[in-house]
Amino acid sequence: MPRLVDHEARRAEIADAVWRVVRRDGIEGASVRRVAAEAGCSTGSLRHYFSTQSELVAFAMELVARRVGERIAALRPQGPPVRRALAHLEEVVPLDDERRAEMHVWLAFTARALVDPQLQELRDRAHTDLRRLCAAVVRRLGVERDVAAEAERLHALVDGLAVHAVVDPATTTPRRVRALLRRHLEALAGG
Amino acid sequence: MPRLVDHEARRAEIADAVWRVVRRDGIEGASVRRVAAEAGCSTGSLRHYFSTQSELVAFAMELVARRVGERIAALRPQGPPVRRALAHLEEVVPLDDERRAEMHVWLAFTARALVDPQLQELRDRAHTDLRRLCAAVVRRLGVERDVAAEAERLHALVDGLAVHAVVDPATTTPRRVRALLRRHLEALAGG
Repeated sequence: MPRLVDHEARRAEIADAVWRVVRRDGIEGASVRRVAAEAGCSTGSLRHYFSTQSELVAFAMELVARRVGERIAALRPQGPPVRRALAHLEEVVPLDDERRAEMHVWLAFTARALVDPQLQELRDRAHTDLRRLCAAVVRRLGVERDVAAEAERLHALVDGLAVHAVVDPATTTPRRVRALLRRHLEALAGG
Repeated sequence: MPRLVDHEARRAEIADAVWRVVRRDGIEGASVRRVAAEAGCSTGSLRHYFSTQSELVAFAMELVARRVGERIAALRPQGPPVRRALAHLEEVVPLDDERRAEMHVWLAFTARALVDPQLQELRDRAHTDLRRLCAAVVRRLGVERDVAAEAERLHALVDGLAVHAVVDPATTTPRRVRALLRRHLEALAGG
């Protein structure tokens, strides 16, 4: 199936181009025109993959979701429960430039999904996946009472820290994010 | 100073119109044209107040900041420390349609400020104000160690819950937000 293979390879190249533009210009700057220039193709041929900026943003968000999922699946954390829990959560908070770019996309995407019904399903999926991860973390820490409430509290903390790491990187440094998550996880494991 | 008074009265009318449009169409739908129609004036005369959508969004965000500030200043909470702390935090999380509309604005504003330098100062101010409120709450609960870290953790939780209340209102209901905040405050007061 050479045509299908070509299509997939082209899609992967475009994904890389989207990512480079997002890291350089922010998600708001990732227009179809700029992505086409970055990928070295015409806007016409790019519109074969997505015809509007909404679709492009959705595509970037799918990329983020896939990257995060792959990183989490590849984890084989060792050590005590809090350290293992932390290893999982570190994949969804912005601890380096790559993950900070992912958070930029997530934040812009979340804001846009409020008014763009096309984006809501994808946003809901990402939200549910993170809630599940938090519930698994809470259970693995040995929490037995109010697991749902603790998962929700952890999820809100993670999303809040992720927002702060993007909007106030001077205060909410990677080191600080890690320390605050550790503090929360230790309180959960100890309570 | 009749002209100044007129100007202020007109600004207040426009503020109301901005607010009605934001509640109805979301912040993304609050174009200069629609706000002008809502306020019953021409887009030309509206541009006297703000000439771009960025300025309009900044204006809406200033409104949110002022509303929240006024509500908090008017509070005279009674009862035990956790209840008084909760009363303050309830003013910054979306527990009704009015505050949910405020959160829509905040979320859209936060996302846009990432790429719009004109908005960053206002965003930073709102961020710092909320951090201070959280630090005051933490201290009033009797926390003596790691006040800064606990203020940061509470702030992240509040912002995360606010995001969730907007993006997932079916799960993160006002009742749920209150219960999770109370749980967190009680853990702080007890630890």
